Amino acid sequence: MDIQVVNAMNYEEFVNVFGNVVETCPMITAAVWTDRPFTRMYALEKSIGDFIDNLPQSGKEGILRCHPDLAGRDLLRGTLSLESQGEQSQAGLTSLTPGQRSQLSELNASYKNRFNFPFVICARMNDRDTIIQQISSRIRNSPEHEIKLSIEEVKKICHLRLLDIFNQVPKATKL
Amino acid sequence: MDIQVVNAMNYEEFVNVFGNVVETCPMITAAVWTDRPFTRMYALEKSIGDFIDNLPQSGKEGILRCHPDLAGRDLLRGTLSLESQGEQSQAGLTSLTPGQRSQLSELNASYKNRFNFPFVICARMNDRDTIIQQISSRIRNSPEHEIKLSIEEVKKICHLRLLDIFNQVPKATKL
Repeated sequence: MDIQVVNAMNYEEFVNVFGNVVETCPMITAAVWTDRPFTRMYALEKSIGDFIDNLPQSGKEGILRCHPDLAGRDLLRGTLSLESQGEQSQAGLTSLTPGQRSQLSELNASYKNRFNFPFVICARMNDRDTIIQQISSRIRNSPEHEIKLSIEEVKKICHLRLLDIFNQVPKATKL
Repeated sequence: MDIQVVNAMNYEEFVNVFGNVVETCPMITAAVWTDRPFTRMYALEKSIGDFIDNLPQSGKEGILRCHPDLAGRDLLRGTLSLESQGEQSQAGLTSLTPGQRSQLSELNASYKNRFNFPFVICARMNDRDTIIQQISSRIRNSPEHEIKLSIEEVKKICHLRLLDIFNQVPKATKL
């Protein structure tokens, strides 16, 4: 998709296309439409990043709380967003062994109990093993540091979703 | 629902119950969970209002852009949120004459063309006639004033949705 096409969209078209680049937060996409025209994809991505960075801490936590658990109930029930479904599948989370599923489930619960938001990681830049390693390690972080790290992951997810829409092949997923 | 029940909810339960008190903006509900415990419904409502007030202008526009048109495509297609469906129906927007529907459709289009967000009004505090009067009048406001008025309407909608959840009869809808 060409940036000129994006800049010509009214807000409804724009939200239809980009509404889930930040998971379940169409309000953020709808807000940055105000910043158009964008010179290129990176400018749109920067508007989204700046909007998130300028939110209070509770707003950042709010974004994280809109994310589903990895290999959680929504994956089992098929109620994930299309984007999340593809990402979790690509990271191998749809083919966990019972042992891995149980381990991740317990780690998710402990993580949420500690931080009051779910573990967020750019699944497409990871696989089952690194995801389990990361959650095991990040659970020991301070809440402040963990919010910061998690928001960086939100931005990576957003970057890859934008690349998908702009029809480019993201380097990070090249095998 | 008792406020003690609300305060005992984890963030997932809280977002499930209150996620749409601001239309299609679960992130806001997810953010204000951080402010718990709430002394009463009003404290929760105030947290939501404060969060919205502290957003930049683009964020407020983003909230407005997450609202459906009144008597618009989503109503015709049956793709409104349950809450919006009930509210638009209660205001008589499901039984417009062809002339009224056409008039409102043209007014919606002119309004969106001028402000780049849809006309937002607390439908349950209005009826077909006052909605058409209000959009005809508000379309002449400055964008800044109109954003302010629209956000006040978002808060009225939120108030009535919260009252519904807390199982109280909102005074404004008593006939």
